[in-house]
Amino acid sequence: MALLKKLRNLKAEDNTGFGNNSSSTGGRFVNPDGKPNVIKRGVGILYRYSWYHTMLGMRRGKFLFLLFLVYISINLFFAGIYYLIGINHLAGVNTGSPLKNFTEVFFFSAQTFTTVGYGRISPTGFMASAVSTFEAFLGLLSFAIATGLFYGRFSRPQAFLKFSKNALIAPYKDGTAFMFRLSPYKNNSLSEVEVKLTMAITNEENGKLTDKFFDLPLEIAKINGLSLSWTIVHPITDKSPFYGLSKEDIANTDIEIMVYIKAFDGVFSNNVVTRTSYISNEIVWGAKFKMMYHPNEDKSKTILNLDKINDFDRVSLPEPAIAATAN
Amino acid sequence: MALLKKLRNLKAEDNTGFGNNSSSTGGRFVNPDGKPNVIKRGVGILYRYSWYHTMLGMRRGKFLFLLFLVYISINLFFAGIYYLIGINHLAGVNTGSPLKNFTEVFFFSAQTFTTVGYGRISPTGFMASAVSTFEAFLGLLSFAIATGLFYGRFSRPQAFLKFSKNALIAPYKDGTAFMFRLSPYKNNSLSEVEVKLTMAITNEENGKLTDKFFDLPLEIAKINGLSLSWTIVHPITDKSPFYGLSKEDIANTDIEIMVYIKAFDGVFSNNVVTRTSYISNEIVWGAKFKMMYHPNEDKSKTILNLDKINDFDRVSLPEPAIAATAN
Amino acid sequence: MALLKKLRNLKAEDNTGFGNNSSSTGGRFVNPDGKPNVIKRGVGILYRYSWYHTMLGMRRGKFLFLLFLVYISINLFFAGIYYLIGINHLAGVNTGSPLKNFTEVFFFSAQTFTTVGYGRISPTGFMASAVSTFEAFLGLLSFAIATGLFYGRFSRPQAFLKFSKNALIAPYKDGTAFMFRLSPYKNNSLSEVEVKLTMAITNEENGKLTDKFFDLPLEIAKINGLSLSWTIVHPITDKSPFYGLSKEDIANTDIEIMVYIKAFDGVFSNNVVTRTSYISNEIVWGAKFKMMYHPNEDKSKTILNLDKINDFDRVSLPEPAIAATAN
Amino acid sequence: MALLKKLRNLKAEDNTGFGNNSSSTGGRFVNPDGKPNVIKRGVGILYRYSWYHTMLGMRRGKFLFLLFLVYISINLFFAGIYYLIGINHLAGVNTGSPLKNFTEVFFFSAQTFTTVGYGRISPTGFMASAVSTFEAFLGLLSFAIATGLFYGRFSRPQAFLKFSKNALIAPYKDGTAFMFRLSPYKNNSLSEVEVKLTMAITNEENGKLTDKFFDLPLEIAKINGLSLSWTIVHPITDKSPFYGLSKEDIANTDIEIMVYIKAFDGVFSNNVVTRTSYISNEIVWGAKFKMMYHPNEDKSKTILNLDKINDFDRVSLPEPAIAATAN
Repeated sequence: MALLKKLRNLKAEDNTGFGNNSSSTGGRFVNPDGKPNVIKRGVGILYRYSWYHTMLGMRRGKFLFLLFLVYISINLFFAGIYYLIGINHLAGVNTGSPLKNFTEVFFFSAQTFTTVGYGRISPTGFMASAVSTFEAFLGLLSFAIATGLFYGRFSRPQAFLKFSKNALIAPYKDGTAFMFRLSPYKNNSLSEVEVKLTMAITNEENGKLTDKFFDLPLEIAKINGLSLSWTIVHPITDKSPFYGLSKEDIANTDIEIMVYIKAFDGVFSNNVVTRTSYISNEIVWGAKFKMMYHPNEDKSKTILNLDKINDFDRVSLPEPAIAATAN
Repeated sequence: MALLKKLRNLKAEDNTGFGNNSSSTGGRFVNPDGKPNVIKRGVGILYRYSWYHTMLGMRRGKFLFLLFLVYISINLFFAGIYYLIGINHLAGVNTGSPLKNFTEVFFFSAQTFTTVGYGRISPTGFMASAVSTFEAFLGLLSFAIATGLFYGRFSRPQAFLKFSKNALIAPYKDGTAFMFRLSPYKNNSLSEVEVKLTMAITNEENGKLTDKFFDLPLEIAKINGLSLSWTIVHPITDKSPFYGLSKEDIANTDIEIMVYIKAFDGVFSNNVVTRTSYISNEIVWGAKFKMMYHPNEDKSKTILNLDKINDFDRVSLPEPAIAATAN
Repeated sequence: MALLKKLRNLKAEDNTGFGNNSSSTGGRFVNPDGKPNVIKRGVGILYRYSWYHTMLGMRRGKFLFLLFLVYISINLFFAGIYYLIGINHLAGVNTGSPLKNFTEVFFFSAQTFTTVGYGRISPTGFMASAVSTFEAFLGLLSFAIATGLFYGRFSRPQAFLKFSKNALIAPYKDGTAFMFRLSPYKNNSLSEVEVKLTMAITNEENGKLTDKFFDLPLEIAKINGLSLSWTIVHPITDKSPFYGLSKEDIANTDIEIMVYIKAFDGVFSNNVVTRTSYISNEIVWGAKFKMMYHPNEDKSKTILNLDKINDFDRVSLPEPAIAATAN
Repeated sequence: MALLKKLRNLKAEDNTGFGNNSSSTGGRFVNPDGKPNVIKRGVGILYRYSWYHTMLGMRRGKFLFLLFLVYISINLFFAGIYYLIGINHLAGVNTGSPLKNFTEVFFFSAQTFTTVGYGRISPTGFMASAVSTFEAFLGLLSFAIATGLFYGRFSRPQAFLKFSKNALIAPYKDGTAFMFRLSPYKNNSLSEVEVKLTMAITNEENGKLTDKFFDLPLEIAKINGLSLSWTIVHPITDKSPFYGLSKEDIANTDIEIMVYIKAFDGVFSNNVVTRTSYISNEIVWGAKFKMMYHPNEDKSKTILNLDKINDFDRVSLPEPAIAATAN
């Protein structure tokens, strides 16, 4: 296999944290959303998931719906208990059909759980009073937990970085380079932004599939601040695992470029980390990114067009990839 | 252009995170409050802003007023619903004119949303009870969110650094130096304070406007602790982009000195970062800062006068700027 | 003593933070849960413990039970006060036997503390009103504290790393190595994982027991990301304090391998630190770990079996431990 | 002056963040509690203090008392407003003397502010209802703020380090060393503990008082973990500013040893920083610390006696301080 020979002389990295036994792993290593493509087994689900972080990572609508569901369920549960204790232990209830009665105790439960306590209905007997005493306690704790969840969701440091959907093999100086683009998309402010690319190639060696990992050196691997867009450039020199690959080689090989970004966020005052990856069919051969910002009319501000982050022009490129001038 | 020639021999920085195509950007790079001078387009406003951080960055009065507005709006909304359901589903209402009735349901809504629940008015029918059950839930969640916002505002690490309004070209050793001054203004305690200056110059090269960036080396770029004031000094040696510039050169050129400060705050136990920038017309030629602290009467404490941070004396200076002794 | 002589030529570390006077310390240095094996004396218990961190470290069930206990206790206390003030100062009480009366004031107290305030019972006299005014205040503060505790428990950065119960002396290249294994067990994502091993040996020197500490160099001491398992490997070269030790030497000597791990957690956006230690009888001579992950059926994902983390096969090993090829 | 001459050959540090013009500063630089000995002037008190951090740094009793005071004040204020609106706008009030009436509206206010809302008293007119609507809103926000303050106080990372009251000039190897001792006093766990000592000496040079600063090199300046006590040792070699000083020199000179400690706290998962300083009369000439830990009875644990942290034995010492062997 040609690919194998080309890579043989490059030093592979062994501190990636991924195994190198390709027959033991399946699919891509990193999903585009940055999460590892791994399923954990052998421990209970409660132990395996941090429910807090599951709640934090959940989409907003689902999160709010879940909270409401829990609220309704708890009230149904307590309504059941009050109903079993007997509606005559609740003063002020407008009695009627069983359903009507259940509705009344359900609303009493809600008024207790939320600590509204209008008092039209109020517990009189020992059992009903004791249960409502516990329910009000539980209600306050539940909203204490909800407060914690909301704050956790708000304050969770995130990088808020948008990546170009494609990575490009683009002209660069006298040769070619592997490029992709990223940009902060919120009113966040990143400084000391570091990026690290690792290429994973599945290779057949002596009839055995192995994964090899290569660090991709970058033109600029760290910038002081990131307000506009940043095109990350890996020049394809003769030290690059891309060197000598043709458009077809890239399309037909099991390649994954894993992106790791670390930055200091001035709003969160915290380091934020984000990951993504590009696989073979996300790499476009022969293209270059279009400019995505321009000055406003009176030239007093710069306008950044985030919807143009993946805009590129097709260009012709010699094959196979030739050496870019190392800088 | 003379300026161009002077800068030609200095190594420009290319890891600033700003583009170097001057015709693509407009105005200063960094606003004096440290935010980038960039407008984002092409993504929805909800996606483009982190509402949480907008709420965090808002001025206190505006923030409290907004909370109150939300409170009133929600109650008006629920009052409308109760009104539509029918005031006869609320026991204890003092009925009267439609306005009087609406006022009553509005106050009932507020008593439900805040979970006060006096109980003079209480829901009786199914619909009114169900809506109030939901409103009390929403009320508690809203105050959970408010709690998160308050805490987020409180605990947001900030550098609390006051900068001199002007930067000075001042005498320094046998030559001159670029200087500005900063001081912590609250009961905060900073250690390991690092400062980094980057100068941006817009230059015409072969009829094309380009931005060039230069790191400005400092006399002292890191101090262990900052309790008093710190005058940051960039000696104008022959390696400085200021070297050989006259008062007029500085006034007439599109210069921006971007300041980046990172420190460890002992109260927040966190790194804090702050930025600012000085542009041409904020640089004073021929001046030096006045002392801004002195001992108290019994010499047992040091008094720091924060209102004197921009106080300087005019001094005469040879032109163009001559070399300070490198240390 | 043979052991002593073997170690004499190795440079011991003196920056471990443990004393080296073995007669002044007792037992292992670090417990398997990572806490130091130290009892503190000479300061009051309130001063010695951070109650907040005690509450944070407590198991969930115990924590919730404690909260409930506090709730009941406070209500019993206030019920006592209302009872002493006199039940006639509470309007709406259903009086009866002293026990019945106490029950009524207890429930009134709970309704005040939780701010439910149904209002069937309400304070009328000055004293009862004043006490309930204070109790409602205390109630809200208590739930404010509970909210803080819940959030503290949720958001406490933890490494969520599972370690193999045993460390192995395993074949490695041409020689042997000391190995153990770890794996993240939750939906957490660690990057820049660093590990540091320190070996403590209690040694008799001139009739005096001393503790000596040695850094154990690792094959790989830092990896970029950790999604699967990581086998940490200390090759037993002639620079290793294990070099030349036999199975019996290890079993009979007071050895402790202290493990210190630091990583950046992407969910918490924070550095997390964890410790553990292996002592003599937790080290298995002549074994190697079994693979603990494999691809799923369609080879699109990798399955990690966390229950196999300590699975190993027995292998024969030459004695004493011979040199692994240094890499 | 002899002292001056001795110091003349040592390189002074100029990155301490303190000025070197002794006539501009007064008293010690750092107070024993680690706060800078500086008074800020020239900005308004609200601007100069972060009220949040003032609340965080306040002693517990004072903090709780202040909260209670605010609670009472707000209720007095609203009671005044209800009283002015007229007690006839509150249904259910037991009217009587003006004081009795004011007491009733005060308790109504408290029941509204805490959202207890028993409902015996309830607002009926528009004005009273509107004010209570606002008060309940304010009440919830106030408790939201209180929640934030409590959590801020709980979660504020602190080093919890106890320092020996005195620093010692003690025998060390063949010479002498400057030593002091510290120990964590809570169930906290510190790793990567770094310490930095800076000596400030006020010196008369050509009739002008100047402050000179010297880094004091340490035997060990960083340890991996801190569970027991740590004696910090600055060997008095001929590179030390202490070298050649006699007991009298130290007592009579204006010396301050500023201590800066940074560590990673495993419970807070955060860096913590602490400072302290020792001045001339806190330095004991000729003493050495006593051991402060020992094994428990069955030698399975180590007992650390925190009350012995300042225990030392007097020893005789040659004068002036002679060189310790540099290591």
